[in-house]
Amino acid sequence: MATTIDFYFEFSSPYGYLASTQIEALAAETGLSLRWHPILLGPMFKAMGLAPLVQVPLKGDYAVLDFKRSARLADIPYAQPEPFPIATVAAARAALHTREHRPDQAAGLIKALYRAYFVDGRRIDEEEVVLDVARECGLDPEETAAGIASEATRAGLRKEIEDAMARGVFGSPFILIGDEPFWGFDRFDHVRKWVAQRNSSA
Amino acid sequence: MATTIDFYFEFSSPYGYLASTQIEALAAETGLSLRWHPILLGPMFKAMGLAPLVQVPLKGDYAVLDFKRSARLADIPYAQPEPFPIATVAAARAALHTREHRPDQAAGLIKALYRAYFVDGRRIDEEEVVLDVARECGLDPEETAAGIASEATRAGLRKEIEDAMARGVFGSPFILIGDEPFWGFDRFDHVRKWVAQRNSSA
Repeated sequence: MATTIDFYFEFSSPYGYLASTQIEALAAETGLSLRWHPILLGPMFKAMGLAPLVQVPLKGDYAVLDFKRSARLADIPYAQPEPFPIATVAAARAALHTREHRPDQAAGLIKALYRAYFVDGRRIDEEEVVLDVARECGLDPEETAAGIASEATRAGLRKEIEDAMARGVFGSPFILIGDEPFWGFDRFDHVRKWVAQRNSSA
Repeated sequence: MATTIDFYFEFSSPYGYLASTQIEALAAETGLSLRWHPILLGPMFKAMGLAPLVQVPLKGDYAVLDFKRSARLADIPYAQPEPFPIATVAAARAALHTREHRPDQAAGLIKALYRAYFVDGRRIDEEEVVLDVARECGLDPEETAAGIASEATRAGLRKEIEDAMARGVFGSPFILIGDEPFWGFDRFDHVRKWVAQRNSSA
């Protein structure tokens, strides 16, 4: 029986940000361990022939309204950033490098990067800003910069994305508990109910 | 202050079906009146350049899993129908005609048509089946057939769809409370919270 929440997220994803503020509580509540998987939606959307949500007519305006309302109704701070969406490869590589080499500090960095963009409007598409946030989290920015630039991290992120797609991940946030997929911050309640039903039938 | 839930739905929409089983309770709980708006997603998706969800790679398999799981976790009967999706113009016209001419029987017919397809697997794309369901709801099938065929109903359904798009509706189920849009069965909890906040700040 799967005992881990695999949590896939893209740093430019508003619902990914909302989920990042609650995922540790969800894991604690369900008694599951948590593994953070930074991914990039760009390569995934290209493979699926999809446009980013905000570029679809009608849906774009609704999406921004729903980002803000979802945050407000859940009491999570949120300020719609501009520009949006942004390229997040430096942030994703920094997160992956930290997960691999400073695992105790990975969750803190990930949450801080999300907050930097979706609360404080900082440009985490710029590597310099990513390194500032890393420093604020107690990480060595030179080590983080070297990690971002390393071939191991580049290859590692490509592999995370390939593995995610092979497991059926196609959005952010995306949770896998074993083979059971949950797409979206709005499925957290399904995760709770699904785990409870699984445990009671085990 | 808006006092009505405008509930937009397409008969081939699984989440629309799930919503149809709970929308009256939601209206009662929030103290709002309810207006049922049958629409067709085909013309809307064409205008937006979208493919139906189930035809998008990866998302299609997930969607069917989520239809079933959403129903199970909410204790709503559901059997994934085949064929799916289907053309629902006869069902939508029957619903609209009944709403206009037998308003007390409209909700009953709508819920019965949804159940016929999503619980019993009946082919509500066939007008004959729509008329059978109408009969089971105590409606006169000849009157319903005449209503489906009438120019008033055809024009009325086109107008419902145009008005819906003008108000920003782009999916099913879709709720409008005044100008506030809610897309999806998974936003019922947002409707509850939004109405409560609006009432407490009024």
